[in-house]
Amino acid sequence: MNRFSDKSSPENETLGGIQSGFCKEGQVKKCRVEPVVIGGMVLDVNATSSMHANPRTTTPGKVIFSLGGVARNVADCISKLEARPFMISAVGFDMAGNMLLEHWESAGLSIEGIQRHQNIETAVVCHIFDQKGEVAAGVAHVESIEKFLTPRWIEKFKCKISSTPILMVDANLNSSSLEASCQMAAQFNTPVWFEPVSVAKSRRIASVVQYVTFASPNEDELVAMANAISGRDIFQPIRHSSTKLSKDSFFQMLKPAISVLLYKGVKVVVVTLGSEGVLLCSKGKSNLQKLAFKENQPSHLSRELYEAVNTVCPRDQLFGASMCEQISNLFAVHFPALPASVVRLTGAGDCLVGGTIASLCAGLDVMQSVAVGIAAAKVVVEVESNVPDEYCLAKLADNARSVYSGATMLLSQSKL
Amino acid sequence: MNRFSDKSSPENETLGGIQSGFCKEGQVKKCRVEPVVIGGMVLDVNATSSMHANPRTTTPGKVIFSLGGVARNVADCISKLEARPFMISAVGFDMAGNMLLEHWESAGLSIEGIQRHQNIETAVVCHIFDQKGEVAAGVAHVESIEKFLTPRWIEKFKCKISSTPILMVDANLNSSSLEASCQMAAQFNTPVWFEPVSVAKSRRIASVVQYVTFASPNEDELVAMANAISGRDIFQPIRHSSTKLSKDSFFQMLKPAISVLLYKGVKVVVVTLGSEGVLLCSKGKSNLQKLAFKENQPSHLSRELYEAVNTVCPRDQLFGASMCEQISNLFAVHFPALPASVVRLTGAGDCLVGGTIASLCAGLDVMQSVAVGIAAAKVVVEVESNVPDEYCLAKLADNARSVYSGATMLLSQSKL
Repeated sequence: MNRFSDKSSPENETLGGIQSGFCKEGQVKKCRVEPVVIGGMVLDVNATSSMHANPRTTTPGKVIFSLGGVARNVADCISKLEARPFMISAVGFDMAGNMLLEHWESAGLSIEGIQRHQNIETAVVCHIFDQKGEVAAGVAHVESIEKFLTPRWIEKFKCKISSTPILMVDANLNSSSLEASCQMAAQFNTPVWFEPVSVAKSRRIASVVQYVTFASPNEDELVAMANAISGRDIFQPIRHSSTKLSKDSFFQMLKPAISVLLYKGVKVVVVTLGSEGVLLCSKGKSNLQKLAFKENQPSHLSRELYEAVNTVCPRDQLFGASMCEQISNLFAVHFPALPASVVRLTGAGDCLVGGTIASLCAGLDVMQSVAVGIAAAKVVVEVESNVPDEYCLAKLADNARSVYSGATMLLSQSKL
Repeated sequence: MNRFSDKSSPENETLGGIQSGFCKEGQVKKCRVEPVVIGGMVLDVNATSSMHANPRTTTPGKVIFSLGGVARNVADCISKLEARPFMISAVGFDMAGNMLLEHWESAGLSIEGIQRHQNIETAVVCHIFDQKGEVAAGVAHVESIEKFLTPRWIEKFKCKISSTPILMVDANLNSSSLEASCQMAAQFNTPVWFEPVSVAKSRRIASVVQYVTFASPNEDELVAMANAISGRDIFQPIRHSSTKLSKDSFFQMLKPAISVLLYKGVKVVVVTLGSEGVLLCSKGKSNLQKLAFKENQPSHLSRELYEAVNTVCPRDQLFGASMCEQISNLFAVHFPALPASVVRLTGAGDCLVGGTIASLCAGLDVMQSVAVGIAAAKVVVEVESNVPDEYCLAKLADNARSVYSGATMLLSQSKL
C-alpha cells in the first residue's frame, strides 16, 4: 500500500535541508516554495468522563494531550500529504511548548518560524467532555498568540511569503498581524487562505477581506463574517428545524452571506456543513480557473498525490458543459461528506483545509482539491488526534473520487 | 533569612549519593533512613475560567499544569524541609511522565523507586474551575497507579522500608499493594502513615487498619473510613448548618468515628477541618509519647528544623499537667488553622502531612510536628502549585509557634 509517511527517503532529507535557515540578501529566489502557515500552535487537553458526571464533581475518565491549534493542524495535515509547510507561530519554554516543538522537529519540519520566548505562555485549550462526547466545560488560554505573533516577527519571513504558492492565516492572529501578513502576500500576488477559527474570531476578516482568496467558514462563522464585513448585523444564524434541510435549501439560506464575501473580494468561499458536506462558491466558474498557482507547481514531492487524484477525479468532466455561467454569476457546487465512524470531530475542518491546500500545491484544481480535503477530513474524525498519523494515498484518492462523483452544481435563483 | 532550599551544600550532595542504587545483599544496614513514600505521581491540569462560564461552552482563562498526586506532594513537601524522601511510584514514557520525573531529578531526589514502562499512561487529573475557584467539572485518569504499583515492584525496595523512620502510603494503591507495603513495614516495626486521598479511596483502610500508625482524613473521609472498618454504614457525614460549629461540637460529632479507628489499631488520627484547623486524637497521651522513632533520629539534615521549632514550641509545656488521662482514655487536641490569603486549596492536606512527617523525622514530637504541618499547609494555599517552591525556616517556626500556642485540649465526655 502506498503511504505518505515515508519521511526517510533521501529526496525528502535533501529538501528538508534546503528549507532551513533565514533568508539572506540575494537568496530570495532560492527559498523553498512550500505553503506558509501563520497562526496558532496549541496544546489541547481533552478529558472525557467515562461515566455520567454530576456537575461540580470529579469522575474517572481519560485525559489525552493532543497537538492542536488551527494553523498547526492545517500545517501538520499538509505535511502528512508530502508538502512541507513553513510554520510561523509562537510558543514558550514550557511543557506545552516543548511538546509542540518536539513533534515539529521529529517530523523534520522547520522550526525557524516558531518564536520562543521566556515570557510566552504556550497556548493551551482544556475541554472536559461528557460521556456522550459533548463539551461539558472548556477553558482557552491562548492570548500569547495574539501578543507575540506580531507583524515584526512575521516580516522576518517575507522571503518565504514572497515565494510560497499559498499563504494560510488563521484568525488567532491579531488584526495588525493579519493585515501585515495579507499585505505582504498581496505584494507578491500570493493567494491567501483565511481560516476563521471560531465565530468570535471570524469577524477579524473585516479588515483583510480584500486580500483573501479562500475562506473556509462553517455556517455560523459565515454569518458572523458577513455581518462583520457589512458592519451591521443583518444576517442571522440558520435555525435548524427537526426536518433535515436539503442542500439546495442550505444554499438558498446561506447565499446572501456568501454573496457578501464574494462581493467584497473573496475569490472562493468553502462553507463546511458538517455531515451535510461542503459548499464551494465563487463568482462564476471561470474565476476558479483563474486561480493560477505559482509556476513551479506541481511540486515533485506531491506528484504522487496529483497522479492518484487526477486519474480518478478527471478535471472538468463534471462541470465542463454546465449552464451556470448563463443564468447566474454565482457558481456553487455541493460536495457530499463521506460516511465515517466518528470518534471525535475536532480537527475535521482543519484537515479539510490542509488536504485542500496540499492538493492545490500539488497542481490539482480547486474542485479536485476540495474533494481531497473532504477525504482527508473523514480520516481524522475516526481517530482521537487532530491530524491522522499518516494518510494512505490509495484510500484517500478513492474517497476523493466518491466525493467528486457525488458533487452537484447548485443553481442560483438570482444574480449576486 | 534562613531558607531550606540550599541543595548545593557539600553535606547534602554526599547524602544524595548514598541514597541511590538498589539494595544489595549485606547492604541493608547501609541504607539511608529517610521517609519512604508510596503512591500517586499525577500531573494536574487546572483550568480556570476568567469570566462567567455558561455550561457547555469554552471561555477564555488560564490553564496551568501542576505536579500533583497525594504521595508525590507529600514527598515533595518533605524534600523542601530538608528530609530526603524515597518515592515509590509509576509513570509512563509520555509527556506527563517526563514532566514529573524531570522535576524529581532536578530536585536531586532518587528516581529508582519510580517505575517506568511503555504501557503506563501517566496519571493525569484535569479540573475546570469557575470564576469563583469552584470545580465546574473534573476528570481523573489515574488507573495506572493501581495497575502498575504492584506488591512485586514495592518489594524491590524492602531494604528502604526496613530502615526508614516512617512509611507513608496513599490510598491510590490497590488493596494488595497497600497490604504488602503495610506488612513489610510491620515486619520492621516501621510506623505507617495512611493518607486517604478521597472519600471513595479512603475505604481501602479497612484491610490494613491494624498496621496504621497515623491516618489523616478530612471529616468526610473519616466517616467513610469508620464505616468501611465497621463493615456497616453507621456513621453519617456531618451536616453543616449555617451557624458555625465550635471545635468542641466538631469533636463530639466526630468522636464516634475517630474512636472506631483508634479502637481498631490506628495510633494517631489527624482530622483536617479546613479553616477550622486540625484535631489530633490518640488513645491517651502516653500513647503519643510511645511513638518512638528509630534510633538514628533526629537526622542531622533536619537539625535546623528541630532547633527552630523546639525553641518556640517547648515540648510538654502545654499539656504536661493535663488531667485528660484521669477522665478519658481518648486524648484530643485542637490546633487552630492559620489565617491565609487563599489562592488555591489544593495541596494543603498534603503539605500538612509532609510538614508533620518531616518534623517527626527531625525528632520533634507529634504535637510539635502537627503544628509545623499546619504552618507548612498555610504556605501552599497562598500559591498556585501543590507544594511551595521553598520554605522559610524562620517564618515556618514562627507560624508553628502561633498554632502550638493556640492549641487546646478537648475533654471527652465519655470513655472510648
